[in-house]
Amino acid sequence: MRPCIVLSRPSHPGNIGAAARAMKTMGFADLRLVAPKSVPAPEAVAMASGAVDVLEAARVFGTLEAALADVVHAVGFSARSRDLSHPVQALREAAPALLARAQAGRVALVFGNETFGLSNEELARCQGFVNIPSNPAYGSLNLAAAVQVACYELATSSGDFAPLAQPEHEAATVEEIEAMHQHFERAMVASGFLDPAQPKRLMERMRRLFARAGLERSEVQFLRGMLAAFEKPKDRNK
Amino acid sequence: MRPCIVLSRPSHPGNIGAAARAMKTMGFADLRLVAPKSVPAPEAVAMASGAVDVLEAARVFGTLEAALADVVHAVGFSARSRDLSHPVQALREAAPALLARAQAGRVALVFGNETFGLSNEELARCQGFVNIPSNPAYGSLNLAAAVQVACYELATSSGDFAPLAQPEHEAATVEEIEAMHQHFERAMVASGFLDPAQPKRLMERMRRLFARAGLERSEVQFLRGMLAAFEKPKDRNK
Repeated sequence: MRPCIVLSRPSHPGNIGAAARAMKTMGFADLRLVAPKSVPAPEAVAMASGAVDVLEAARVFGTLEAALADVVHAVGFSARSRDLSHPVQALREAAPALLARAQAGRVALVFGNETFGLSNEELARCQGFVNIPSNPAYGSLNLAAAVQVACYELATSSGDFAPLAQPEHEAATVEEIEAMHQHFERAMVASGFLDPAQPKRLMERMRRLFARAGLERSEVQFLRGMLAAFEKPKDRNK
Repeated sequence: MRPCIVLSRPSHPGNIGAAARAMKTMGFADLRLVAPKSVPAPEAVAMASGAVDVLEAARVFGTLEAALADVVHAVGFSARSRDLSHPVQALREAAPALLARAQAGRVALVFGNETFGLSNEELARCQGFVNIPSNPAYGSLNLAAAVQVACYELATSSGDFAPLAQPEHEAATVEEIEAMHQHFERAMVASGFLDPAQPKRLMERMRRLFARAGLERSEVQFLRGMLAAFEKPKDRNK
């Protein structure tokens, strides 16, 4: 079950919309708002972009307790340590256990107000604390940016989304590459660039370069075509 | 050397400011703009929040080539596969090699226009392609959100930022916990809740619960104080 995202006392409707977009890009759909300063406004819709469905399905609660009623494990996101706190885990380290808990029931990721973060009372309603490690000199992630990072981390840690299909390229065979190197060698000798008596490891360097590149069949053909053109007598236009 | 962030043809000044903020939270400072629709405007400053320094230090270039002049390895961020493309790597898989390259010289993370992404011409100026795996049904990350995720991934993969200091709590010793369990047992027997003839594994279950919680010394004291209060004769107010 995908975790729900709980925004407690958000001030800016634009951030609510941006958070909805961030969620949807990572496959999250359950958005819960606790006492938002304004209920989703035109600005929220604009920032939601293609995630207006997530924004429109968001539920509004009067208290954090009410928003967490069906939740088995709530994690508060905090930018700083607090005296009374549970131990704080870095997001990446927390992800595997959160994903495991999400198998058993509804997990909530709880984010506080843009300016003040989560209050101690709100944090006391959470069973775990998570921090997004950031620049000690300026660690203030925008609210929707924090939601984006949290959802990205959970989606990536769970391997939810297949990587993009790779472009299909036919790799060159050893035989094709070998023939190309011989072609290069002939052409370099004929041009005077490679002296067979003093080869200076030129062929070795060329093999190393092309090995690193990982040649495709069409590239071998292209290179040999180029070589053939170079081999043509230069005085043909005279 | 920290990678630079290159935004090619960004349309919205607000996104430039939000990208500057995203960068700074993860310790990135070198922002380069290629032919922005408007040079950083008041909206950009507002969105940059505490990262106005990054925004003000941003350099503007006429072409992507100029922006990449001192770069040894440029990675284009792409939301989709393309026919002529290099192989595309998922961000997390790409991170270690990018960090290694950044040891040797300036690496660039290149992001395209909000609506169109990177053109094929722009991608052809890059040596690697990276994708942020996302919801196949809606993978459109906001530009600054993509910058935030990229910078987070590189900062986290490099272990740049120490985790938050843990709150200092003194763990209870085995002796203290053992004395507490005996106290619980006495109190439960005295109250009639625990029948020593038929203990029903009550103590075993209690031990399991408290072992899981990992008791602190002050919590043991608090629990024993509570127990002592329960043990007082209930008729003392009569």
